[in-house]
Amino acid sequence: MTEANLHLFSHQFVDGPNQPNRNEETLLQTSFPFGFGTTIVHDWTLTETTNSKDTVVARAQGVHVEAGLTKDNRWYMTHNIEFEQGRFAGSTLQVIGITVGLESGQWSIVGGTGQFIMAQGIISFTNHAASTWEDGIKELNIRVGFIICMIAC
Amino acid sequence: MTEANLHLFSHQFVDGPNQPNRNEETLLQTSFPFGFGTTIVHDWTLTETTNSKDTVVARAQGVHVEAGLTKDNRWYMTHNIEFEQGRFAGSTLQVIGITVGLESGQWSIVGGTGQFIMAQGIISFTNHAASTWEDGIKELNIRVGFIICMIAC
Amino acid sequence: MTEANLHLFSHQFVDGPNQPNRNEETLLQTSFPFGFGTTIVHDWTLTETTNSKDTVVARAQGVHVEAGLTKDNRWYMTHNIEFEQGRFAGSTLQVIGITVGLESGQWSIVGGTGQFIMAQGIISFTNHAASTWEDGIKELNIRVGFIICMIAC
Repeated sequence: MTEANLHLFSHQFVDGPNQPNRNEETLLQTSFPFGFGTTIVHDWTLTETTNSKDTVVARAQGVHVEAGLTKDNRWYMTHNIEFEQGRFAGSTLQVIGITVGLESGQWSIVGGTGQFIMAQGIISFTNHAASTWEDGIKELNIRVGFIICMIAC
Repeated sequence: MTEANLHLFSHQFVDGPNQPNRNEETLLQTSFPFGFGTTIVHDWTLTETTNSKDTVVARAQGVHVEAGLTKDNRWYMTHNIEFEQGRFAGSTLQVIGITVGLESGQWSIVGGTGQFIMAQGIISFTNHAASTWEDGIKELNIRVGFIICMIAC
Repeated sequence: MTEANLHLFSHQFVDGPNQPNRNEETLLQTSFPFGFGTTIVHDWTLTETTNSKDTVVARAQGVHVEAGLTKDNRWYMTHNIEFEQGRFAGSTLQVIGITVGLESGQWSIVGGTGQFIMAQGIISFTNHAASTWEDGIKELNIRVGFIICMIAC
């Protein structure tokens, strides 16, 4: 198994009435406590610096659903991370995890395509101090193990 | 690879007009045969006994979608299981599988975080006789393999 | 680890007003560019030939969500593939990936149940020339590695 370590920043331009740059949209709004069931589609950008205008290295495209009945900010989140630039351009990672608000946490890498065949690993994230009112920046440490070739070689 | 075997019971307090204790909510109701497309968010509790008032060891937070066009009860289900108590507190498992009605079956563990780095495994479930009209109890046998440390050690 | 190679064809009978044979239904329609957020539940059939009336070997039951903000056809897709016939009848594969329109691509196999315990692998797909206005046919090359028994043996 080969391992790659990637250091990227994700930009979540949150949905809202005065958020013209948003890169997510609310699909279902609920009136349950803690917004239980709120469903949002996202297409977050990943860059190598905290500057959202930097080259987009990858995109995280998927959904997150508020799944906490008794507590705020327990989003079930899943997406494909598709690399557009660099060594892994054209390859994807499949990710599932819990997205929290201001805290740090981990997401699980459950698979991959292209160069990331049979990928597994962890994305450790921390909300970054450079975040603004519209751009929630997460620092991502991606550790992924994958197989160079699937048939014995 | 290390292996853990966990024996837990999940409590699905089903949604419905006279179900004040429900721990899931219907987000989309459809009029297609078999309820095709019905979408429900859930935050089921997991305990060590069939008693739902026992300590909550973990929560299964995610969604299930009726995905059977020609047959009832073919729910596509996915959730994060987050452990709140015991040896694995703070760690999570990512789960995908088919949830059926009264039958037994298996879900797939496709990843993990915390102590469950790079987890894979199987959750075998059986609907339990202690189930009531409001609390659908499943007996879960969780077999999970994971890696103690990712970097060679 | 054991490996299986399967060669199947998937049939996506697309949703639409004059599509009585459709095997998917639109759950959420949006007015965002590129249909961002459009959510569809599907129960596609898999056969051994391009003929959709051939024996159904497996079904792919799940959802796909348009998750491209700046580009068409970046569907986040996830489903359970449940085998109904043959050597793997009763077993399932869990799949996540990006579904594109007319192009080819790869989906990731992130887990399995039954005989496919701890499965990982790749489904390479190509849109097939035998597709019709109502039946979008994909040729699938499924390469999956799995474990015969989980406990050392």
